[in-house]
Amino acid sequence: MEVTLEMARTAIRAALDAGAEKGFRPLTAIVLDAGGHIVAFERSDGSAPGRFAIAHGKAYGAVMLGMPGSAQMKRAEDQHYFMTAMNGAFGGAVVPVPGGILIKDGDRVIGALGVTGDTSDNDVIAGLQGLEAAGLTGAA
Amino acid sequence: MEVTLEMARTAIRAALDAGAEKGFRPLTAIVLDAGGHIVAFERSDGSAPGRFAIAHGKAYGAVMLGMPGSAQMKRAEDQHYFMTAMNGAFGGAVVPVPGGILIKDGDRVIGALGVTGDTSDNDVIAGLQGLEAAGLTGAA
Amino acid sequence: MEVTLEMARTAIRAALDAGAEKGFRPLTAIVLDAGGHIVAFERSDGSAPGRFAIAHGKAYGAVMLGMPGSAQMKRAEDQHYFMTAMNGAFGGAVVPVPGGILIKDGDRVIGALGVTGDTSDNDVIAGLQGLEAAGLTGAA
Amino acid sequence: MEVTLEMARTAIRAALDAGAEKGFRPLTAIVLDAGGHIVAFERSDGSAPGRFAIAHGKAYGAVMLGMPGSAQMKRAEDQHYFMTAMNGAFGGAVVPVPGGILIKDGDRVIGALGVTGDTSDNDVIAGLQGLEAAGLTGAA
Repeated sequence: MEVTLEMARTAIRAALDAGAEKGFRPLTAIVLDAGGHIVAFERSDGSAPGRFAIAHGKAYGAVMLGMPGSAQMKRAEDQHYFMTAMNGAFGGAVVPVPGGILIKDGDRVIGALGVTGDTSDNDVIAGLQGLEAAGLTGAA
Repeated sequence: MEVTLEMARTAIRAALDAGAEKGFRPLTAIVLDAGGHIVAFERSDGSAPGRFAIAHGKAYGAVMLGMPGSAQMKRAEDQHYFMTAMNGAFGGAVVPVPGGILIKDGDRVIGALGVTGDTSDNDVIAGLQGLEAAGLTGAA
Repeated sequence: MEVTLEMARTAIRAALDAGAEKGFRPLTAIVLDAGGHIVAFERSDGSAPGRFAIAHGKAYGAVMLGMPGSAQMKRAEDQHYFMTAMNGAFGGAVVPVPGGILIKDGDRVIGALGVTGDTSDNDVIAGLQGLEAAGLTGAA
Repeated sequence: MEVTLEMARTAIRAALDAGAEKGFRPLTAIVLDAGGHIVAFERSDGSAPGRFAIAHGKAYGAVMLGMPGSAQMKRAEDQHYFMTAMNGAFGGAVVPVPGGILIKDGDRVIGALGVTGDTSDNDVIAGLQGLEAAGLTGAA
């Protein structure tokens, strides 16, 4: 299975809508494919201009390392210089906090959803709801 | 006036749909705001992974230089080393061909739409149709 | 409201003058617009050549993240790997200490003032005095 | 002699005013010191956000190569791959067209003024008038 544009659109819009319904701050979301390339992206009105880089870094780090944001955060807490090195090795595009959610087909990583705008935990709540709306399975 | 996410969504989807209806190759489209920051992006199924950088470079160059892609192409043909220098000055993110369409509110640039996937001329046709669907004025 | 060149000139000069009157070390100041693009910049005689990058990084991080320098510093102290990742994600241009002051029009961020040269706290004192002279509202 | 902030302010403001009086499009101007580091910068209201990179590239190339913009343009026309290589070697910050004006004290380069916004020839006219107002000698 591959992540189609229709799935990505659905997941992003459902994540943004979930955040709005729950009263989260305006969210920004991105979907990358299995190669780490962008399929779709949306930034809510009122989000800071830098939200693209954060959403992208969460999702890109997840795909490139095969690790969801929560696992990257644990690694950063245990061994911060390693995740700093990962940030450098991938040109700055690794943001090791929750909200970088792997999209999986069984054991296979087929992409990632990155969500940012509220607390990292709330970003994950909205993101998982988005993936569910698109019929996709996430590992946060 | 600012480009809202709803306007960006509408313009991108209408541009992609216009391309599909006309039998163009699968299109990719991006909308940037007045500061050159991404509002929304979509890559059609079957588009090459590098289409993000091309769509972005068309739209980013247009906003940063205040010149649509067609004017940049003319400048590149008349004085190619200047546009090569612009590409370097903006970190590679200037692609000086049609398909980088300024979004204007009167005389003011409020963003840009970048379209890529078919010939540059067809990219413009789809892009202008997208902007029209969103009630936005383009300068191609 | 947008930050005009006249406002930026006034704020920068008043910040530099405030520092000189208070006996601070020579200050450097920058004003960015809502998209993070430079409107005006001045480096006092006797400031180190690297002060541009510091002033810029304070102001740019503030605009891109929608967070003033003091909030970024707190985040860096609580979760330093996150601010390290932000530095990488924005190409090095995030300096998370006080002196990156958001310029606001109500709830909306319309730019930032970055001040550097003395202690971070003194940089803020001079910066807020500069914004006041220009009739602008700062969030430090 | 060194370029002081007061000289830089005077030159920039006089260049911008000269452009406005002559009916040029809104100008952007920068002054660098002998080490290529920014002393002051101003972007007129209505200038495209990318004007910083262009003004900077004109002035930086002039200082780093010790050649004014007109000489760089001639070199680009005679041997374009060389100036393309210079652009790459200096991280994109070489824009080889008129408007990069060396500031000289006798034979010694003490800085550069970069002007952009109208035609390259008009940029030079405004720039030389700015340097004259500041009591500085330019080589365009």
